[in-house]
Amino acid sequence: MIQSPSKSKKSGSIVNINEYFQQRALQVDQWLDRLLPSESESPPIIHQAMRYSVFAGGKRLRPILAIATGEVFGADEKQLLPAACSLEMIHTYSLIHDDLPAMDNDDLRRGLPTCHVKFGEAMAILAGDALLTQAFLTLASYEAPSSETKARVISEVARASATTGALIGGQVLDIQFEGKPVTGAQLEEIHRAKTGALIRCAVRIGAIIGGASDDELNSITEYGEKAGLAFQVADDLLDETATSEELGKTAGKDVASQKATYTALYGIEGARQMANRLCREAIRASRRAHRNTSILDAIARFIIERRS
Amino acid sequence: MIQSPSKSKKSGSIVNINEYFQQRALQVDQWLDRLLPSESESPPIIHQAMRYSVFAGGKRLRPILAIATGEVFGADEKQLLPAACSLEMIHTYSLIHDDLPAMDNDDLRRGLPTCHVKFGEAMAILAGDALLTQAFLTLASYEAPSSETKARVISEVARASATTGALIGGQVLDIQFEGKPVTGAQLEEIHRAKTGALIRCAVRIGAIIGGASDDELNSITEYGEKAGLAFQVADDLLDETATSEELGKTAGKDVASQKATYTALYGIEGARQMANRLCREAIRASRRAHRNTSILDAIARFIIERRS
Repeated sequence: MIQSPSKSKKSGSIVNINEYFQQRALQVDQWLDRLLPSESESPPIIHQAMRYSVFAGGKRLRPILAIATGEVFGADEKQLLPAACSLEMIHTYSLIHDDLPAMDNDDLRRGLPTCHVKFGEAMAILAGDALLTQAFLTLASYEAPSSETKARVISEVARASATTGALIGGQVLDIQFEGKPVTGAQLEEIHRAKTGALIRCAVRIGAIIGGASDDELNSITEYGEKAGLAFQVADDLLDETATSEELGKTAGKDVASQKATYTALYGIEGARQMANRLCREAIRASRRAHRNTSILDAIARFIIERRS
Repeated sequence: MIQSPSKSKKSGSIVNINEYFQQRALQVDQWLDRLLPSESESPPIIHQAMRYSVFAGGKRLRPILAIATGEVFGADEKQLLPAACSLEMIHTYSLIHDDLPAMDNDDLRRGLPTCHVKFGEAMAILAGDALLTQAFLTLASYEAPSSETKARVISEVARASATTGALIGGQVLDIQFEGKPVTGAQLEEIHRAKTGALIRCAVRIGAIIGGASDDELNSITEYGEKAGLAFQVADDLLDETATSEELGKTAGKDVASQKATYTALYGIEGARQMANRLCREAIRASRRAHRNTSILDAIARFIIERRS
């Protein structure tokens, strides 16, 4: 059962966000284990590859944002968790495909060999395909507040994972802009799509499953958009300021591969100020959405303060 | 508007199945054009790659099977066509990914350069991902007889596209068995998954959208399973007996790459007999499903008699 974190603290303030993330990540992993085909199912190799990448670590930011937002709006756990986990399946599929030799050609992800290094390119392509498919199978098969809500959530997730202003479109732009000078507006377009769309989607589906009103949904969407951009700015800062060990991936790689980053565009101090401003704006939007969003506010702060 | 083909002929017999396929393929193409993002939408290159492969030809067998079955059960056209087209998006995504250098490494598909030859590997991987995503976006966004039916159809399509006994699992088995001796049972397992699952799904979703009873659905599922196997046996026969020009792809490639085929296992005459038997069994099953299935019977015959 999800315990509302505000119950254990006075006046709803969340002291230990790291503990919250740990508890929710554990719960997400338990559900992912239940939702993914077991390694013994035929053909085993594809399920091994899917599970290898899904359970290779990761903060579970997207599912946790969906869960935290769902909690705020009083969503039912057994309706919330499968939908939240579907986002992690999609996030993992996108990482597997982005790491392929034809794309970013990364050997290391979350401190481990990437899927294609471990299982070969063919199986990595198929494992990505399978995780994307499994996400929609999960969304279609599990309980929702109503069939209308189920269809709406599927549509939200598909839209955030599609091309224009969404996951795949963002990766296309990222490839197209590599090594080229970009403006601040172009960088924002890339990241609103590549990482922003799925983070925005996470808070939206949490709110939709929790039965949020249109006004509440609009404000929580703004929270998601600001938090998503803040996440990317913080990611660029980490790439320049953290070690490879802290990150579990090659630090400084963005600079080396001439990727467009916020730090390249605005400098480290400018990027820091930007992350702080986005975090404050996210918190203001969340407070318009609901009277008790302390957990969402803590997540927004966590996003810009994390060290990995 | 879909004209029931039986209306134009006496006692429901379909004389010209080629004409039926042409008309329905045209209609499927019109809907696909409406359902896919336009080439001008950002980023254009991904939409060009998606459309290049979707409109590179093809019989549209899966959507036409869904439409024909839907017609038999009186489905509404505007509910049937988007769902039918989603199957062609999934079929096309699977062809794009199967053709990649890391998989079958095919340069030619339907007489044209494959997606990765035309657009590069990265874009081909992403175009496949995008078509799979677009399929679910389509299924979630368009009208269905009810929200329950919509969720059920999405679940059917996701299951047929997933791993165990389904599209991706079939491709994994195909890769694993390449160059190895297989038994008849193993060959059937590969093809039930790789091509059979989506063909079976096509007739099932047509029947579900048309409101078929459980008994009708069971019989039509058997029709789909038999027709799907017949299709694969006929495909193997064509690979050995047709020219590359007729096929629009390299003929004799299965033999050259030591792929397991029905002709390799049973010989050309044995495979012909098998295709004929499966066709008869498919027709028997369809007649248990509904009193007027002349169009489905004609499609089953077309499947084994086609020359490309």
